[in-house]
Amino acid sequence: MKLPGQEEFEHSGAHGNVLAEELDSGLGPGPSLGGPSDTNSEESGVSKDPLLFIQLNELLGWPQALEWRETGRWVLFEEKLEVGAGRWSAPYVPTLALPSLQKLRSLLAEGIVLLDCQVQSLLELVEQVISGESLNPELRGQLQALLMQRPQHHIQTPGIRPCRGSNAFRNASHDEDTPSKHWNPLRQKLPPGAEAAAVLAGELGFLDQPLGAFVRLRNPVVLEPLTEVILPSRFFCLLLGPPTQGRSYHEMGRAAAVLLSDPQFQWSVRRASNLHDLLAALDAFLQEVTTLPPGRWDRTARIPPPKCLASQHKRLCSERQEVTGFSGGSGAQAGQHTPGPELQRTGRLFGGLVQDVRRKACWYPSDFLDAIHPQCFSAVRHIYLATVTNAITFGGLLGDATEGAQGVLESFLGTAVAGAAFCLMAGQPLTILSSTGPVLVFERLLFSFSRDHSLDYLPFRLWVGIWVATFCLVLVATEASLLVRSFTRFTEEGFCALISLIFIYDAVGKMLNVIRAYPIQRPGSPAYGCFCEYPGPGGNASEWTSTKHKDTDVLSHLGLVNASLLSPPECIQQGGYPRGPSCHTVPDIAFFSLLLFLTSFFCSMALKHVKSSRLFPSVVRKVFSDFSSILAILLGCGLDAFLGLATPKLLVPTEFKPTLPGRGWLVPPFGANPWWLSVAAAVPALLLSILIFMDQQITAVILNRAEYKLQKGAGFHLDLFCVAVLMLLTSALGLPWYVSTTVISLAHMDSLRRESKAFVPGEAPHFLGIREQRLTGLVVFILTGVSIFLAPVLKFIPMPVLYGIFLYMGVSALSSIQFMKRVQLLLIPTKRQPDMLLLRHVPLSRVHLFTAIQIACLGFLWIIKSTPAAIIFPLMLLGLVGVRKALEWVFSPQELLWLDELMPEEEKNIPENGLEPDRLFSRSDNEDSELMYQPKAPEINISVN
Amino acid sequence: MKLPGQEEFEHSGAHGNVLAEELDSGLGPGPSLGGPSDTNSEESGVSKDPLLFIQLNELLGWPQALEWRETGRWVLFEEKLEVGAGRWSAPYVPTLALPSLQKLRSLLAEGIVLLDCQVQSLLELVEQVISGESLNPELRGQLQALLMQRPQHHIQTPGIRPCRGSNAFRNASHDEDTPSKHWNPLRQKLPPGAEAAAVLAGELGFLDQPLGAFVRLRNPVVLEPLTEVILPSRFFCLLLGPPTQGRSYHEMGRAAAVLLSDPQFQWSVRRASNLHDLLAALDAFLQEVTTLPPGRWDRTARIPPPKCLASQHKRLCSERQEVTGFSGGSGAQAGQHTPGPELQRTGRLFGGLVQDVRRKACWYPSDFLDAIHPQCFSAVRHIYLATVTNAITFGGLLGDATEGAQGVLESFLGTAVAGAAFCLMAGQPLTILSSTGPVLVFERLLFSFSRDHSLDYLPFRLWVGIWVATFCLVLVATEASLLVRSFTRFTEEGFCALISLIFIYDAVGKMLNVIRAYPIQRPGSPAYGCFCEYPGPGGNASEWTSTKHKDTDVLSHLGLVNASLLSPPECIQQGGYPRGPSCHTVPDIAFFSLLLFLTSFFCSMALKHVKSSRLFPSVVRKVFSDFSSILAILLGCGLDAFLGLATPKLLVPTEFKPTLPGRGWLVPPFGANPWWLSVAAAVPALLLSILIFMDQQITAVILNRAEYKLQKGAGFHLDLFCVAVLMLLTSALGLPWYVSTTVISLAHMDSLRRESKAFVPGEAPHFLGIREQRLTGLVVFILTGVSIFLAPVLKFIPMPVLYGIFLYMGVSALSSIQFMKRVQLLLIPTKRQPDMLLLRHVPLSRVHLFTAIQIACLGFLWIIKSTPAAIIFPLMLLGLVGVRKALEWVFSPQELLWLDELMPEEEKNIPENGLEPDRLFSRSDNEDSELMYQPKAPEINISVN
Repeated sequence: MKLPGQEEFEHSGAHGNVLAEELDSGLGPGPSLGGPSDTNSEESGVSKDPLLFIQLNELLGWPQALEWRETGRWVLFEEKLEVGAGRWSAPYVPTLALPSLQKLRSLLAEGIVLLDCQVQSLLELVEQVISGESLNPELRGQLQALLMQRPQHHIQTPGIRPCRGSNAFRNASHDEDTPSKHWNPLRQKLPPGAEAAAVLAGELGFLDQPLGAFVRLRNPVVLEPLTEVILPSRFFCLLLGPPTQGRSYHEMGRAAAVLLSDPQFQWSVRRASNLHDLLAALDAFLQEVTTLPPGRWDRTARIPPPKCLASQHKRLCSERQEVTGFSGGSGAQAGQHTPGPELQRTGRLFGGLVQDVRRKACWYPSDFLDAIHPQCFSAVRHIYLATVTNAITFGGLLGDATEGAQGVLESFLGTAVAGAAFCLMAGQPLTILSSTGPVLVFERLLFSFSRDHSLDYLPFRLWVGIWVATFCLVLVATEASLLVRSFTRFTEEGFCALISLIFIYDAVGKMLNVIRAYPIQRPGSPAYGCFCEYPGPGGNASEWTSTKHKDTDVLSHLGLVNASLLSPPECIQQGGYPRGPSCHTVPDIAFFSLLLFLTSFFCSMALKHVKSSRLFPSVVRKVFSDFSSILAILLGCGLDAFLGLATPKLLVPTEFKPTLPGRGWLVPPFGANPWWLSVAAAVPALLLSILIFMDQQITAVILNRAEYKLQKGAGFHLDLFCVAVLMLLTSALGLPWYVSTTVISLAHMDSLRRESKAFVPGEAPHFLGIREQRLTGLVVFILTGVSIFLAPVLKFIPMPVLYGIFLYMGVSALSSIQFMKRVQLLLIPTKRQPDMLLLRHVPLSRVHLFTAIQIACLGFLWIIKSTPAAIIFPLMLLGLVGVRKALEWVFSPQELLWLDELMPEEEKNIPENGLEPDRLFSRSDNEDSELMYQPKAPEINISVN
Repeated sequence: MKLPGQEEFEHSGAHGNVLAEELDSGLGPGPSLGGPSDTNSEESGVSKDPLLFIQLNELLGWPQALEWRETGRWVLFEEKLEVGAGRWSAPYVPTLALPSLQKLRSLLAEGIVLLDCQVQSLLELVEQVISGESLNPELRGQLQALLMQRPQHHIQTPGIRPCRGSNAFRNASHDEDTPSKHWNPLRQKLPPGAEAAAVLAGELGFLDQPLGAFVRLRNPVVLEPLTEVILPSRFFCLLLGPPTQGRSYHEMGRAAAVLLSDPQFQWSVRRASNLHDLLAALDAFLQEVTTLPPGRWDRTARIPPPKCLASQHKRLCSERQEVTGFSGGSGAQAGQHTPGPELQRTGRLFGGLVQDVRRKACWYPSDFLDAIHPQCFSAVRHIYLATVTNAITFGGLLGDATEGAQGVLESFLGTAVAGAAFCLMAGQPLTILSSTGPVLVFERLLFSFSRDHSLDYLPFRLWVGIWVATFCLVLVATEASLLVRSFTRFTEEGFCALISLIFIYDAVGKMLNVIRAYPIQRPGSPAYGCFCEYPGPGGNASEWTSTKHKDTDVLSHLGLVNASLLSPPECIQQGGYPRGPSCHTVPDIAFFSLLLFLTSFFCSMALKHVKSSRLFPSVVRKVFSDFSSILAILLGCGLDAFLGLATPKLLVPTEFKPTLPGRGWLVPPFGANPWWLSVAAAVPALLLSILIFMDQQITAVILNRAEYKLQKGAGFHLDLFCVAVLMLLTSALGLPWYVSTTVISLAHMDSLRRESKAFVPGEAPHFLGIREQRLTGLVVFILTGVSIFLAPVLKFIPMPVLYGIFLYMGVSALSSIQFMKRVQLLLIPTKRQPDMLLLRHVPLSRVHLFTAIQIACLGFLWIIKSTPAAIIFPLMLLGLVGVRKALEWVFSPQELLWLDELMPEEEKNIPENGLEPDRLFSRSDNEDSELMYQPKAPEINISVN
């Protein structure tokens, strides 16, 4: 068990002057810094070596004003000093010309190679190097003075000058007071134990032959003025020679630096015992370089660092998760459902549940201790906002659809109670419970069914809940969660697409209802005929006089004394009767509602995309993106309040009581319903159970994927058990039903990522794992419970704004699935199609056929949903599994592997029936770029929230 | 003088079987196909060589089912056959491993090299190759049979199978009937005279030592079944050997193909006389390859072809012009204003004009003959739509601002007359005349000035026009057009940004005016009080009775017999009087107008961006993008017509007469104005002259840039002269004023681009020039004139739609200038800044300072524009030239070179005062990628349309 924060390095400037031996014995380079060798057992020695910072100092200004200037630096990638702009370039993949590598090789072969050199200072080092050269004494002196000259460093820190002027050189290897003067942002990033290498290259007029030296120090020593970052230097490389054409020493210096930045070369050269080893390492490097032909690629173009380094294993390549948005290239899915210990059948009744409880119990104390970390605060803030937005939106919509049977208040209360209880009990406490799309859709159908048959809704619903809980318990007992492996992407996408479409359809439909309720007044329609009639002649004339408007003059001029031009509400308030054809129309509301709808939709869309924009510091971008829905709602409310129009608003009870007038918190078991309905409720309950099972378990599988590196294991059976118990509770109290929600849960995990902090320029931070604990979830739901006091504020939210957010949810869920990408392919001409792995391996016509089948299934589901039999749609969703099974007759396993993923039985079959022994299944297929296997984003926003 | 269509190759399938000698003497590979050697005199021989198509046939299926299969092909870039998907990959930059090149070298060194081999068929070739090998006869037979086996080609043509089954091999080199069966899309693209090279590689179990052969045929011969495309083969390369690890013969085959695809290697090997020359060429290739270190880059990642090939000269790199949108990276501008013969001072009065006329006169007949090409039709369609949209929008807005003094009708008429006249007379007939932003802004100021001082506007305007024409003639006489070289980007951007901001401000302002005119009815406001009063008791009661509504019952119930609830327009129509506080409010108009405004803005934005989307075939995308404004206007009109609301509409006269009631077509010279006003008009005329001079000449300079490769020269003086004459004409007729408009003129040029049609996969088409002629412009303006009959339809266009288009123009013009990119830089954290050339060479703080100065200038201009002295803003714009001059005290010439461009005097100074002899000015600076020097898009949408 790790203590929080253990994996981050303690940074202090004090490391700079400590001798390297002391550091070397310390924490080491950490798990993140082994470079590409993490998963490669052959190179496992490399990861033990310290990180190397390489600096190129170039000799410039010959012949008048010789000076050393730092012009490049490397850790994994190259950074070049933009001399004119006075800034470091962005890190890029270094490119070299082959001749510069060859020239370097011959220079080293003829030059001085000192391995395990023992020196204490730069002076000693320089003396040793020069003594090896056959130079006349005068030249030797000149050279030594030159080498001791302080180089110009470029340190991008405001307030500190790039160099300390003429205060020449001093030996600072044991100097304790310098580090504070040398604060360098790069130093902050490099891990303790890092070493430096200095490459000195340049053209020197008084030399008549090249002068090359390569030194490895036995004990690395801080050669203070040489490197920009105060680190003990391990390597020293000198490349000087008479002036040449085309800066060839600069290029040789770069070549040396690039060589040193290669982990494999570094490993070899740290262990080299003679010149031969050194050259062998260089030759080994040459064997592995990638060459680009001349004229097809500009050598000076800067290639940005790839997102994940090539040698890492495809599957483990990267864990950087984007919570929403398209995943880069998505392809083979095999292995996604590879069962862990949690998905092994025990064969005993409740055997899985017992195992889950046993497995999770030992982690229980740590589930609270692990939460002691500042990161958890920001996670709570982020997830709390998402949860509250969800509660408002779903509460508003559900209350709207069920005529107040589940309003916003119930939504808040239910979310708080169910969520908190789940966090305390569940197998996977990172899961966030929420109202989800499928359940919302089902509940709306259930409500219209019960209204059509004049049933007492809440008691009926209670029985449905009781039956669902029972069925779920049966599923837990029989370890049915194992069936989740049959839900391939085909099923998930069908599920998600249908729900998303229903969301979009409903959002637009509800908006149109508003427009219908507040009709637009066209020319010719009686827009102007409404006035207020007195109750009777001589009624309470004194009162009327007091509120007399000047417009009554017009009326009295016409002989009307018992009428006024008050607006209908005012008229009724004052005891009059509104008369006239247009009294019931409210102008401007329709278009204003439409504007609010569009504003909240586009605003939340735009704010979500700020995250991937270049503008603003990352903190600001994160805030915009995290708060997108809330900001959109606030904007809508602001607009509405500013104009003060009577738009339809969210229904919120004025005090703490159920939204539906006249009911208590506890739902009566029968109400006005006949007794047999409690039995008949088993039928819809069966359908709902299917839905809840699919929704809950698919989310659980996604959350427990191997790439998240969870330590404490999953609890599929325990989670379903908890959902069943909560089902019972929420049904009895008339609260909404809850299941795990994919998107918020993934956002929760994402905000609890542990990443390596010290990383080298150009390299993405390494993912270490998730802060698995129960406390953040618990706090989020407690805060949600407290937010019930927000209720009085919520009544200012116009409904069209919520419809806009609803539309946004549908659209973003729909666009996140691969299915939509394939639908787009139908519209893209072959030549311009993106380079998806899918398209490399499956003929386009087959891809289109698969997409067409999905569209057909979706069309069929939509038709079902539009008939009176709509309520059976969960059964039809389950039917997708059957359709998927039938697809095996149409597509080959290879095609299905790329288009979908394999079902459990197929996975077993594949190795045997090697129908087509081409390279599709060989993992060593070197034709597919590993870069294509991008981190998988959660493609299934199945919970649509 | 070239005949139209001369530069396109005639395509027919008949070339396939003609012997190469015949083709070789023909058209040759054309100017576009020399690859990177166009500008490199050393390699000028290369461009004479035919294009080479290289195909890699791989031996697969050992040991059971040996077959040759085409797995890759090259012309400039590599295309790989995706076996699983059955398609060719997109072209990409080939990457090789160094060892495969080295192995290839040693295989060739030991193998058979036959140069200038004389064979007539594949059989002969195979026999010659095999005879050179020391093999036993049985093996020899096997090998020969294998080599004669027909390979599997993948030809992406529906209806034609990839191979013709077992119909084995036949010698087709002189066969005349095959081409039709071999229709291949790639063949269509390759130019006549192209040759083929076949690389055969694979692993063969029965060989015990490698077998390499390289053959150059003296006379290329169609080796029919060998290559997918029926071309005479020049090279043949055989690489066979015993099975190895990791497909090394595949990689060697690729290496051979990549080598052959390199123009320099090809050049050498075509001239090689022995093995030594061949190996020397290979070594020369190796000296030039770019290497990427292992582990930093995945060798299997496919690098898309760069937009322009590296070895081409920076300036001439590419001419692909995007008419709108950001230019990639923009940097040094030096040379942009390098004066051609048109901008040399003659020193004589009207000397420039005379030269212009003389220069253009000889081209006059060809200006009509050159228009005979189908491309001109689509150019006319595209430019006509742009011109009409412009005429409607500017006419609508100008009519709106000048209260009908220049309406839509005037706009159509003026555009047609002025445009057509200009096309016939001008120096640069590709220029499209139009109302432009600056002149529009000035005219609005002029109108408010004359209204404020109760002047008779049109006569006053006439005198302004007369003076402007006079001043312009003076400018022509004194050859003032040469001054245009002082307008650097700083001036242009200030000009464009101010006008764009005014557009945006006005569009929003006009929209707010609509909202003010149709106020929103808030709760409590008297929305309901309006009814219609009878003219008098017993007036024309019979008529009232006939139109009696049921609502009169309500009124009569109240004792009101002389009133009705008719809407105000109906009431007035029937002779009554609308009475009540809300009679003048029309509900819903405000929000609906806002919706129309936003719809047309976002719709035109979105449609414009369809062009860069992947979706839809390019034709559809082009239509969407070309018609974006028209489609947005149509959509707005459709919405408006559908709802039938009384939104404010475009003012169009019902018959062919000036929009302003009561004026004739000819403007009276004095009208109600005092005589001295004709003299005083010289003052605003001076300001307008500055504006027109700047607007006209900057457009002219942009249009005549060297990268457009115009053949017929420019006519700066003649153009200004034409503008002056037209100024006189339009002022006299009370039509709007016209100058050249940058954006439409560039669109015009773009639609007349001549491009090489036959291009190799992955290479962008080459730009050959512009179809310079006068006819397309003339036809466009004649059509515009005819469109006056559209006028009755135009009155259905709601004004808010036009305001939306107006906003779109402002926003897109503003976002196209580099200034806005630098403003964005202020908001981007340093780490995420894009890799602009600018930022590589100028310190960020200096970039920000420059931007801040521009913002300050803009703020000052805006303040001027908001005061009563607004009309002097042209003078202030000219002042920007002075500010730019003053900037030389703040910034170094190097900085100005990157941030702006150099003024004429500075250009002269630079070489002398080499203040800072760093690499900034050396054009050979190999640190900047040539790819950064992207084609310059017209950055200055100065005319804002």
